[in-house]
Amino acid sequence: MTVHVDAAGNIRGVYAAASGNGRRLFIGSHLDTVPHAGAFDGVLGVVMGIALVESLRGQPLPFSIEVVGFSEEEGVRFGVPFIGSRALVGDVDQTLLAAKDASGLSVGESIAAFGLDVSRIGDARAAAHALGYLEFHIEQGPVLDQLHQPIAVVDCIVGRTYADATFIGAAGHAGTTPMNARRDAVTAAAEWIGRVEASAQQTSGLVATTGRIEAQPGAANVIAGDCRVTLDVRHADDAVRSAAVRQLHDAAEAVAAHRGLTLDWVTRFDHASVAMDAELVARLTRAVERAGVKPFVMPSGAGHDAMILAAHMPAAMLFIRTPGGISHHPDESVMPGDVAIALAAAADFLHG
Amino acid sequence: MTVHVDAAGNIRGVYAAASGNGRRLFIGSHLDTVPHAGAFDGVLGVVMGIALVESLRGQPLPFSIEVVGFSEEEGVRFGVPFIGSRALVGDVDQTLLAAKDASGLSVGESIAAFGLDVSRIGDARAAAHALGYLEFHIEQGPVLDQLHQPIAVVDCIVGRTYADATFIGAAGHAGTTPMNARRDAVTAAAEWIGRVEASAQQTSGLVATTGRIEAQPGAANVIAGDCRVTLDVRHADDAVRSAAVRQLHDAAEAVAAHRGLTLDWVTRFDHASVAMDAELVARLTRAVERAGVKPFVMPSGAGHDAMILAAHMPAAMLFIRTPGGISHHPDESVMPGDVAIALAAAADFLHG
Repeated sequence: MTVHVDAAGNIRGVYAAASGNGRRLFIGSHLDTVPHAGAFDGVLGVVMGIALVESLRGQPLPFSIEVVGFSEEEGVRFGVPFIGSRALVGDVDQTLLAAKDASGLSVGESIAAFGLDVSRIGDARAAAHALGYLEFHIEQGPVLDQLHQPIAVVDCIVGRTYADATFIGAAGHAGTTPMNARRDAVTAAAEWIGRVEASAQQTSGLVATTGRIEAQPGAANVIAGDCRVTLDVRHADDAVRSAAVRQLHDAAEAVAAHRGLTLDWVTRFDHASVAMDAELVARLTRAVERAGVKPFVMPSGAGHDAMILAAHMPAAMLFIRTPGGISHHPDESVMPGDVAIALAAAADFLHG
Repeated sequence: MTVHVDAAGNIRGVYAAASGNGRRLFIGSHLDTVPHAGAFDGVLGVVMGIALVESLRGQPLPFSIEVVGFSEEEGVRFGVPFIGSRALVGDVDQTLLAAKDASGLSVGESIAAFGLDVSRIGDARAAAHALGYLEFHIEQGPVLDQLHQPIAVVDCIVGRTYADATFIGAAGHAGTTPMNARRDAVTAAAEWIGRVEASAQQTSGLVATTGRIEAQPGAANVIAGDCRVTLDVRHADDAVRSAAVRQLHDAAEAVAAHRGLTLDWVTRFDHASVAMDAELVARLTRAVERAGVKPFVMPSGAGHDAMILAAHMPAAMLFIRTPGGISHHPDESVMPGDVAIALAAAADFLHG
């Protein structure tokens, strides 16, 4: 392969086609990790791309292959994810380059400090001649492990709504305020959290999470005057997700109203589901079957570089089982047999 | 009155008895406040003691009266409440004197820096000749306001249990972990908070508060792996409180167990209820009735200096209605008519 590092810090290796100017299949994943992470989230997909090329033993295909190790997918340093893949599709603007890390250094300045020429970032764009994009990635969830399924074809990356619900009641003395005279923001939030959980449990494929909760003033001997809860809702079907968010918002209003509290609701963002390419999904599914595995198709509950590339070229993903669903943790692992099956399926896909 | 400041910083004024060595009735409350407080919590009771003496127009009683403005009741500066009243009953030890404020200055050093002689703190003790203790204090709750009742006789200061309940589940990815594969510490805590509230609502006179809640890691896109909730339970009857705490602990264990979580429970303290003197309560109740008010007797949900003095002399308290139950806030208020009624009842009590 011919390898270079583009101006966004992506490492790119090209395996030339039989005819020099054929179209190009991109295979990639990211090289960065979250802090205190495991060894497989991201980098396994890059290494598998290289292994797949190696398995061709120098025999060219009718199209070229470019293996990409994307930079800055997690968004840890600058709070902005997918910087490398956005550069590949030409979606880097001044806002992104101005985003700063904790030390005040911007994306643009960091690229220069790394020895790259930020003015050449437009050259990283490569979507025009793309045949498609394939990403191997660990599932990072327990679904395949529970189903005893080594790999899965991803059909979409779920849409996501993130909102803050703040219940506003009245702070009061924990000793002198009888139960019937309280407008307690924590108990209101607790009632709503119960409804969120029950609602998600009753809707197939829906996940709803209340991961952060903060009460003010937050003292043991003071009834909380307000309580903020984050809500993260995801589903493959945008209509199902939107209906769920509306219902949970209505439930929060109802809980606040019947307790004499008010609700402050802020939708932080609303991202649509991103479909993988139907033709590539079908081809990949057939390849999995020919590799001797019962095909299984599932949505991805997490975001991946494939989300960014899917708007510009046909994209597909293969998930590899994650034992225990453990990810973003040093105990993260994969089973070598699963990796071999995924590579066999991908080799069939290349020739299919 | 003959006034001095004792070594604990209490301001003490003695109104002599008709015969020089009669027994002594203490009347007091505290002079300190919490930050950003109102104008009545504490100091009103001291001013009313002085007003009560003034109303005697120089006529001596068969006993002397000592009005005390207690120092450091709230415990804000050193984290230890009731320093002034503990000095009055001779309950100041080296541990208390060594307690430090935020700047590292100890109680003992602060007393010296204020110009008092900490070695004389034993002289502040005055319980030996005590006839009793009377404290006027604002209710700091909404009960009297809701009942349209100007004042109340306090029959006890409620007992209190403070515990931390920590639900320990498993952190997980908010997108990739299906609802049925979660061990979510926040939803477990929420279920338990609902049970705490319902249980307290069903038990007459019980208050239970979950004022502080913290989820870890506490991110919108991560299922919480653990969630700590504080529990503050109060009741006039220690047996009722202990039974309630046991029941809430069992409920927390049950919620954790049926969700596959574990519970870490730490009881921080367990303070028994402190009864006011039955004879003084009866006399005060008759005096309230003779002042033209329907007598109303209630427990105090908050701690007061009377708690400390009650172990050493007969103690009684009169609560004054707190409009809206608003206290520890600049909007804290009292109605002049209520103060006049309380003074009239106390004057009758002195002569009764």
